[in-house]
Amino acid sequence: MSLAQALDDLQLFLGERFSRSKPDLDAHAQSESHFPPAPPDAVAYPESTAEVAQIVKVCAKYDVPVVGWGAGTSLEAQAQAVRGGIIVDFARMNRVLNIRAEDMDVTVQPGVTRESLNEELRATGLFFPVDPGANASLGGMAMTRASGTTTVRYGSMRDNVLGFEAVLADGTVIRTGTRARKSAAGYDLTALLVGSEGTLALVTEITLRLHGIPESISAGICAFPDMHTAANAVMETIQMGIPMARIEFACADTARAFNTYAGTDMAPLPHLMVEFHGSPESVAQDAARFAEIVADHDGTDFQWSARAEERNALWAMRHNGYYAILASRPGARGLVTDICVPISQLARAVEETQDDIAASGIPGPILGHVGDGNFHAILLIDPDIPAEIDIAKALSARMAERALRLGGTCTGEHGVGLGKKDYMQAEHGHGWQVMGALKATMDPQGILNPGKLVPGR
Amino acid sequence: MSLAQALDDLQLFLGERFSRSKPDLDAHAQSESHFPPAPPDAVAYPESTAEVAQIVKVCAKYDVPVVGWGAGTSLEAQAQAVRGGIIVDFARMNRVLNIRAEDMDVTVQPGVTRESLNEELRATGLFFPVDPGANASLGGMAMTRASGTTTVRYGSMRDNVLGFEAVLADGTVIRTGTRARKSAAGYDLTALLVGSEGTLALVTEITLRLHGIPESISAGICAFPDMHTAANAVMETIQMGIPMARIEFACADTARAFNTYAGTDMAPLPHLMVEFHGSPESVAQDAARFAEIVADHDGTDFQWSARAEERNALWAMRHNGYYAILASRPGARGLVTDICVPISQLARAVEETQDDIAASGIPGPILGHVGDGNFHAILLIDPDIPAEIDIAKALSARMAERALRLGGTCTGEHGVGLGKKDYMQAEHGHGWQVMGALKATMDPQGILNPGKLVPGR
Repeated sequence: MSLAQALDDLQLFLGERFSRSKPDLDAHAQSESHFPPAPPDAVAYPESTAEVAQIVKVCAKYDVPVVGWGAGTSLEAQAQAVRGGIIVDFARMNRVLNIRAEDMDVTVQPGVTRESLNEELRATGLFFPVDPGANASLGGMAMTRASGTTTVRYGSMRDNVLGFEAVLADGTVIRTGTRARKSAAGYDLTALLVGSEGTLALVTEITLRLHGIPESISAGICAFPDMHTAANAVMETIQMGIPMARIEFACADTARAFNTYAGTDMAPLPHLMVEFHGSPESVAQDAARFAEIVADHDGTDFQWSARAEERNALWAMRHNGYYAILASRPGARGLVTDICVPISQLARAVEETQDDIAASGIPGPILGHVGDGNFHAILLIDPDIPAEIDIAKALSARMAERALRLGGTCTGEHGVGLGKKDYMQAEHGHGWQVMGALKATMDPQGILNPGKLVPGR
Repeated sequence: MSLAQALDDLQLFLGERFSRSKPDLDAHAQSESHFPPAPPDAVAYPESTAEVAQIVKVCAKYDVPVVGWGAGTSLEAQAQAVRGGIIVDFARMNRVLNIRAEDMDVTVQPGVTRESLNEELRATGLFFPVDPGANASLGGMAMTRASGTTTVRYGSMRDNVLGFEAVLADGTVIRTGTRARKSAAGYDLTALLVGSEGTLALVTEITLRLHGIPESISAGICAFPDMHTAANAVMETIQMGIPMARIEFACADTARAFNTYAGTDMAPLPHLMVEFHGSPESVAQDAARFAEIVADHDGTDFQWSARAEERNALWAMRHNGYYAILASRPGARGLVTDICVPISQLARAVEETQDDIAASGIPGPILGHVGDGNFHAILLIDPDIPAEIDIAKALSARMAERALRLGGTCTGEHGVGLGKKDYMQAEHGHGWQVMGALKATMDPQGILNPGKLVPGR
């Protein structure tokens, strides 16, 4: 590794779009996560695929790590340059390249955020549904295999990426996938790259599926006496095939946090928040069927509305859940956990987790995309009490182990990064070694986001 | 390669479940395709994962090819042992291992066929939707990334496989995926294996998503003055978000073939055959909305019915399409093509293909899963006229090139095998070399289904 020469070459090549200033390094040292900062040696701001390829070639020549950066919202330190090297910030590759309304697809550069994409789509009657909460970049979302509240209806990034343009570890540019809705032409390189966290390639274009904005949207909320009845209602709803667009869980502590933070008047009970997409008739019918299930499981009256203001207020509250929960313990930092289990194990997973948190001495309200079996505890840590981070990490570890024991996964949507690497062996067994072998094939020098996802330091 | 020793070892190990009889070799020399027979050296009938692993270990030890075999319905010679070696016939690994109705998933052995799975599921209210027409094995369907008539609603095998147990090229057994509905835990090995055609591993268990049998199903048919108006109706239907469960195209020649073969009375025009799944109210509403679109595009009166007899007759006719078309030219063999394009290019792709076929001198009626942009010409070859196979192959080649030119793929659902290998470089560029590198990593000896899918002889 000859970092100095790489820095010189890249400085010459990119000029003002190559930065070694302390503020820039600090701004790229840490994403929205609890991991300690790890500043890179430099930050590059390419404006084209050719520039990304050239950056990777220089890094390959001098054996220097190269790490992609989108909006810095990852929760498991995926974008931290833990071994130094170059951060490739895609902020200047933020153009929507081609909206093809007839085919309901779009090609974007990786720095486009999901909100700005939906802004650009407004006139088309189409939208991009994957919604992880944060206004993440689509490159980051693809690389993390992000999902979120609407995945129960529209799928995750796995289901909504049709193809990539990507720069391999030697600087070669490939295209994966086509614009056809399906293909049986060989290994699914697109699917291999989705969720690869920048360890196999840097993606420079993404072609995404779009969906029609539904004619009518209705949303509602209801409470349950306990987690068990709420989970049974979710399970029955999914089994009945009611096409839920969202079905979100908030625990009693979360309801209390909402009340304090947003001035709502929720009962201190577990809640489900749901949304239906369709025609005015179908959303009314879906809501009525869901209301029957709620009543059968001792839920409170299911109130729903097709009015946009009420719906927007509901989801604004849900999306501010993290901040509402943070505010419930003044001065606290949040360690956000993320497991996903088969639906039949959801009640058990949540209840065991709640018991474990209750015994730990730190608060940890629970929120979740329960239609997928995915939920998060927001573990609230007092940064002045060093023992609490250890308590939180131990709780997170037991959650991951619990998920695996119940047939699930150690991460539903936040990805591996640094935070979940310790569970990869337990989840995948020898499959993790296979991942390592694939990585070694595609990146023999190990320059692409080293230290992440695969076995090894 | 020491074939003789491998045969001896396997004979000793499997006894009567290892066959070198001529009838057995001949029965495994050719699937339902136009490729010349290529008998293997032996056929093994394992009954467990451990036996499959042992077979692979023996083949690895003696450097002998090993090729999986499901129901022998593949159309691109995927299961032919073109370099000899051992066919692993999964006929005795045909058990449904675990139906988990609560989680709407099932684990099966690879030899289970889709019809037998749905038979076993009958009491649960659930079904497995992927329907390629043939009663294929689920192992074969997964390995081919099969899809079919219902993919527009329920997705392909890519979307419906949750995980595998698989035997790697050295005999190691891995598990991929979990039973959670989604995961962000590392490379998607499940997606890498789906569509890999037995070149990366032999799968020994498959966990599949199930879906609720809809409360109500309605189906109907209508004709259009020409392909262009039919394609526009399809495009508008998809864009409107009408949740079609099937939307199938049959050209005028196909309608004529149905009339002769099945005694129907279809107009000699392009037709769409559609199906809706939902509640009685929603299917009626969907049909009414579709009828409006049909009328707007000069289609004939859209007739639909929620009665099972009429629906079953419609889809029996569709599923017999291949045989009806074959019968339209007595004594002919069929070469089935398979391309998939973006929906906006569908009319153009079909029309150019029809013109090309009309000029070729051989018949080639067209059928397609047009909601996905996927269609097939059944090229009818007189086996006594050797020039016709060349004409058909040239037509098929031009179809593949046309698909690529229009932003699509050389195979929507039949896979690569031998038939589409020639187009892989054009479709994937350097990505095909990446596939070759992945193959070399996972199967360094090249014993798993050699000669297929990846670069090289």
